[in-house]
Amino acid sequence: MINKLVSEIKKKNAPIVVGLDPTMAMIPEHIQKKAFSMYGETLEGAAEAIWEFNKEIVDATYDLIPAVKPQIAMYEAFGVPGVLAFKNTVDYCKEKGLVVIGDVKRGDIGSTSAAYASGHLGRVQIGSKFCTGFDEDFATVNPYLGTDGIKPFVDVCKAEKKGIFVLVKTSNPSSGEFQDKLIEDENGVKRPFYEIVGEMVDKWGSDCMGDAYSYVGAVVGATYPEMGKILRKIMPKAYILVPGYGAQGGKASDLKPYFNEDGLGAIVNSSRGIIAAWKNDKYKDRFASENFAGASRQAVIDMLDDIRSNVF
Amino acid sequence: MINKLVSEIKKKNAPIVVGLDPTMAMIPEHIQKKAFSMYGETLEGAAEAIWEFNKEIVDATYDLIPAVKPQIAMYEAFGVPGVLAFKNTVDYCKEKGLVVIGDVKRGDIGSTSAAYASGHLGRVQIGSKFCTGFDEDFATVNPYLGTDGIKPFVDVCKAEKKGIFVLVKTSNPSSGEFQDKLIEDENGVKRPFYEIVGEMVDKWGSDCMGDAYSYVGAVVGATYPEMGKILRKIMPKAYILVPGYGAQGGKASDLKPYFNEDGLGAIVNSSRGIIAAWKNDKYKDRFASENFAGASRQAVIDMLDDIRSNVF
Repeated sequence: MINKLVSEIKKKNAPIVVGLDPTMAMIPEHIQKKAFSMYGETLEGAAEAIWEFNKEIVDATYDLIPAVKPQIAMYEAFGVPGVLAFKNTVDYCKEKGLVVIGDVKRGDIGSTSAAYASGHLGRVQIGSKFCTGFDEDFATVNPYLGTDGIKPFVDVCKAEKKGIFVLVKTSNPSSGEFQDKLIEDENGVKRPFYEIVGEMVDKWGSDCMGDAYSYVGAVVGATYPEMGKILRKIMPKAYILVPGYGAQGGKASDLKPYFNEDGLGAIVNSSRGIIAAWKNDKYKDRFASENFAGASRQAVIDMLDDIRSNVF
Repeated sequence: MINKLVSEIKKKNAPIVVGLDPTMAMIPEHIQKKAFSMYGETLEGAAEAIWEFNKEIVDATYDLIPAVKPQIAMYEAFGVPGVLAFKNTVDYCKEKGLVVIGDVKRGDIGSTSAAYASGHLGRVQIGSKFCTGFDEDFATVNPYLGTDGIKPFVDVCKAEKKGIFVLVKTSNPSSGEFQDKLIEDENGVKRPFYEIVGEMVDKWGSDCMGDAYSYVGAVVGATYPEMGKILRKIMPKAYILVPGYGAQGGKASDLKPYFNEDGLGAIVNSSRGIIAAWKNDKYKDRFASENFAGASRQAVIDMLDDIRSNVF
């Protein structure tokens, strides 16, 4: 799947991913109204609105982008119907040829991590049959529990040719509280915690390589370019998923260090900046709320221009 | 909710929680057969089997125990139907008066953590109405993203009188890889990472107190009693959820340090040891697979005896 991701990024000349992280406030009234008329102001109504919203955005942007990244939290907020909307979104995006990165940030121990890995990337045995649960192409994974939380994901990635992105340095303001703590190694050299995690990502990924990049990637926030530069060197074979561009303050001019010299190695996420573009001052006069998906398309084009002209 | 948990633990004299973490291999054939005859060897069939299995175990044990801890990974493995079985299990356990700890180990940044918190512990606004998603009583949370990953959970806990258990030191063999790294503080004193996280748990919990314990608890594995002792002192007001007893190797005689002098402050989880008791040599001659729930009840009684006689 890492090979497909790289080839789609090259084909579309677009090292970007659209975060499908809808909230009710982002969904135009006409979509909400229609959904509520079918299912009432219920979890089912909200899930229907989310699904219709996503579908229009995907239809308006899929030819420009290699991948989407639905954030499952936004769907779990609406209980089981919300999770069904997540699954429908995953399936629809795959039908459209998009690579789907499930932003699930799962992570647990041994058999429990194996269950997450099977459910999101692999298959489960039921009687004499094998079935798939959510079947994303990639999942994001939390490293706090160490190798035996990651290993089951790596095993499923190898078996199914899927991939993971391990959280290394997240984009949020308080990420440094734990991730930046200095650790002294056996030679007395002090290095921040995220570098140690980065080294493990390199190690975990070394025996499951695609053509040029590993099945094991990393998440490094756009808001910390100095750290991105160091982590790029520590994990030369890891694709870096870069959140934090746009709404969170990350700028295109800061993104260069995340890429390798081949122009590859990083994929930059934007969520709100794309899917809620119709509410943004920049677009709201040109695009009516009925044409929210048109605003999303324009925001993708503008993001691509910004990255192509500032990074390469 | 922490007050209810403490009062149920006292009333039943049972500082334990049953982990409802079913796998297909644990579910007796007659349950699987019946479920498959209704839904085939499908995700729906597996989910039905899981739900029937859980229901019988809950019916056979709820009078002895204060709480259950369904591990959502085991349900997510079976996709949307599995997640529905999780939700049905949560609701059924609450009907039976049990405190439900959703072992979801979620954790993300800002608005995303808020979405997880709303979905698992709080409410979401849909049009003019408020609806609940999964509505567990407690959730487990991963601290890797720092305060702005935890704060939204704490806010929901305050509003809804719910609670969280933050991962501090997990029970797995490789938990030390990151969690035990030594960090030097401003005075040059080196302490392990899990102590720093423990201090943050104490801080996060200090302004949302129940009667004697905080809404913010911690997860500390039974497999590391020396660390349990230290963490007990660092977080005097945090209830400690202790996984790793039984199948993972934790012994009752090691559990004393996790408790405070009031005999409270810790709740010990057993999953496989209870729900798969019918497959264990100790019980399999006395309980037919048809009476798997009877074996679970006996295993609860034996666990309580073990803890009462070795800890107090």
